[in-house]
Amino acid sequence: MTESALPTVICTVDVVLLTLQQGALQVALLRRERAPFAGALALPGGYIHAQEDADAQASAARVLRDKAGLQSPYLEQLATFSGPVRDPRGWSLAVAYCALVPPEVLAQAPLTLVPVAELPALPFDHRAMVDAAVARVRSKSQYSSMPVHLCAEPFTLPQLQAVYEAVLGEPVNKVSFRRKMDELAMLEPVPGALQGGGAHRPAQLYRVRPAYRRNLSLSARGL
Amino acid sequence: MTESALPTVICTVDVVLLTLQQGALQVALLRRERAPFAGALALPGGYIHAQEDADAQASAARVLRDKAGLQSPYLEQLATFSGPVRDPRGWSLAVAYCALVPPEVLAQAPLTLVPVAELPALPFDHRAMVDAAVARVRSKSQYSSMPVHLCAEPFTLPQLQAVYEAVLGEPVNKVSFRRKMDELAMLEPVPGALQGGGAHRPAQLYRVRPAYRRNLSLSARGL
Repeated sequence: MTESALPTVICTVDVVLLTLQQGALQVALLRRERAPFAGALALPGGYIHAQEDADAQASAARVLRDKAGLQSPYLEQLATFSGPVRDPRGWSLAVAYCALVPPEVLAQAPLTLVPVAELPALPFDHRAMVDAAVARVRSKSQYSSMPVHLCAEPFTLPQLQAVYEAVLGEPVNKVSFRRKMDELAMLEPVPGALQGGGAHRPAQLYRVRPAYRRNLSLSARGL
Repeated sequence: MTESALPTVICTVDVVLLTLQQGALQVALLRRERAPFAGALALPGGYIHAQEDADAQASAARVLRDKAGLQSPYLEQLATFSGPVRDPRGWSLAVAYCALVPPEVLAQAPLTLVPVAELPALPFDHRAMVDAAVARVRSKSQYSSMPVHLCAEPFTLPQLQAVYEAVLGEPVNKVSFRRKMDELAMLEPVPGALQGGGAHRPAQLYRVRPAYRRNLSLSARGL
């Protein structure tokens, strides 16, 4: 069969945008303006624009910028979902991405945050995408710097440990957490920045080293 | 922009078909019959056929069946590669898959096996796909049943251990290997089947339990 005789595949991207609020992972949903499923809450997504996008990752970044006002958050390709029935418009393929942001940057965005444990019915196969993203984040949090992208900078080590604990859904030993952070070598102290005081000793504030703002730091063993 | 005004995206699948021969991971390449890059060795791949494929995974299985005569080997989605320059025909998107097979099943296939450590120049971004597949297999071999798909059934535990060692590129402790196999619970003894004898005690032969022929068994800790 020649290329021109092949039926068109609808090519889109969808983004599972996760954040942490009230100690729980939340997914950001957007009310759909157009058919199909107009009016329904769904993942932010859109067509790949071959005339302007450098790749599907750039399509996902553009969708986040245009629909949620977000500039270059941490963004990782999750998986591609495809087939004849997932979209009523026809045979379609969606490259799904996972984005992680601190809740502070979503304050002005026109998004609805929903705890991943209390998802409403979602159109397309968006539920499967959310499930895949949550599984990925939980699994990678065991042995990488991934959760740091859920934490607004600068932060103290106890604040970051609380983020890891919220993602993993269980307490983390303080000593092994600090050893893991040393091993990942992704943090740097903010010079001269201390938090607090009060009854406690002031705590050093940290930020992510530039090399790890777009990439993960991995360790061989889990927390 | 309306859907019909969007430039077409060329949608393909490519398969990184890996096997183990002479103690080294090898990738199976196929000589391309058509332009672009006619005559070059490349990964087996082809267009998504929206009129017949149930999803991109089915496209990859069809490509392996039609071009290499392989029936349903272990097949896992790797990542999607996309952009305006990776294919001279235009903006394209390739869903890359990783397939693992024992060398025995490739004996009749019109494929060229090349050690992954000695790759020739490959067209498109096939080199990046091979690199991603090898990294995935090495990483997953630490904590999953993945290498079992490189081993022809039935096999003895020492034979399977040699497969793990070849993939990981380092010796594995026999006691922790056997503990890991128990934990993964993916093997079953073939009733009454023993190998050898000679100077040694005959060894039990094993096969993969049906539930793990298409899915991996995972463990929380690495080997």
